[in-house]
Amino acid sequence: MSYEAKLVEMGIILPPPPKPVATYIPAVLTGHLLFLSGVVPFQDGKLVLEGKLGKDLTVEQGYEAARIALLNALAIVRSELGSLDRVAKVVRLVGYVASAEGFTQQPGVINGASDLLVRIFGEAGRHARAAVGAAGLPFDASVELELIVQVS
Amino acid sequence: MSYEAKLVEMGIILPPPPKPVATYIPAVLTGHLLFLSGVVPFQDGKLVLEGKLGKDLTVEQGYEAARIALLNALAIVRSELGSLDRVAKVVRLVGYVASAEGFTQQPGVINGASDLLVRIFGEAGRHARAAVGAAGLPFDASVELELIVQVS
Amino acid sequence: MSYEAKLVEMGIILPPPPKPVATYIPAVLTGHLLFLSGVVPFQDGKLVLEGKLGKDLTVEQGYEAARIALLNALAIVRSELGSLDRVAKVVRLVGYVASAEGFTQQPGVINGASDLLVRIFGEAGRHARAAVGAAGLPFDASVELELIVQVS
Repeated sequence: MSYEAKLVEMGIILPPPPKPVATYIPAVLTGHLLFLSGVVPFQDGKLVLEGKLGKDLTVEQGYEAARIALLNALAIVRSELGSLDRVAKVVRLVGYVASAEGFTQQPGVINGASDLLVRIFGEAGRHARAAVGAAGLPFDASVELELIVQVS
Repeated sequence: MSYEAKLVEMGIILPPPPKPVATYIPAVLTGHLLFLSGVVPFQDGKLVLEGKLGKDLTVEQGYEAARIALLNALAIVRSELGSLDRVAKVVRLVGYVASAEGFTQQPGVINGASDLLVRIFGEAGRHARAAVGAAGLPFDASVELELIVQVS
Repeated sequence: MSYEAKLVEMGIILPPPPKPVATYIPAVLTGHLLFLSGVVPFQDGKLVLEGKLGKDLTVEQGYEAARIALLNALAIVRSELGSLDRVAKVVRLVGYVASAEGFTQQPGVINGASDLLVRIFGEAGRHARAAVGAAGLPFDASVELELIVQVS
């Protein structure tokens, strides 16, 4: 099954790709690698689930924020490549989690993105990953994802 | 116009490339990609605009720190490649911003680097980017940039 | 001398490669680049030297934590490639250091990984590097390393 068909089956509708807020661009293709700009949890045109983990949000809410941020990343991938079906492999995901003092469950948050990647892309969705606590993220986002995808 | 000529036209003189303070090196070329080490705002041989955003520095000062750090990155690029004119494309920039509690304007700071990249390299300077808040940076630097460049 | 022989000469025994705690995988090979997942200081099956630099651990302890984390990265490299001798070049290391307020000696910590890379791989071990302060790391790890290696 194609990834686009899988998305339909899962009932997922991607948001419009986020517009960069400065002079950078959503993604750069170099060779077979597509480097994406950082994405945050935009939904219906605005940032949702703001704040820091360990203070403003539960791990479950962080998981959902990571899931929503990933949809924005996929919207960029589709917009750049024409279709998710051109994804050969998800290479690497760094997940930054806005973390209050003492919060150490960054992996549980970023799983919201990792789990969805694997549900959509199957084995090709299994990626190298780092989850890191940030002292703050743009516009008080709770999660920021940086993705590299291999294109066929 | 060549990028080196553009630099002259803009009146920009690059600093000497920063020397790594340990066993790593300024950059590694692999295939067509040049991965640079993290650079901080060195000027005239010393770190400037130290401290954290949201406490010690304004966004405008952070923007200037990012601009200065980028000059150090470009000095490495020229030193590694012989000339900026061998840059085919700027691929990806991660900007870490030392952030005090509550600071969320990392994009406004890293624009200091992004804007200069586009002014020098034009369309080839438009890059994928992530701006992230760090809990602290080497030697109390306010900004650290990590750059990947595609070489022709 | 082969890198595997060098390891034996240095008396280093790699740990078993760490198992990801979620749906991601330890590493992804794309073209000639091996992207590794973030590794933390696991030893004898458990996390050691937990906590934040600048509060719970000295720089010397952080250096040791980075050294141990790197052994876990090398265990992944060997497990993925069959042998460390397939490493052509170490490309890039990002070292995240869990940092309490005011800690700015991230480079001294990440040297624990950089120094070992150079001792094992010689010139091929010299890498591009960024050292960054994190607001918190998974499971209270003091250090997390993200490595990219070029494969021959």
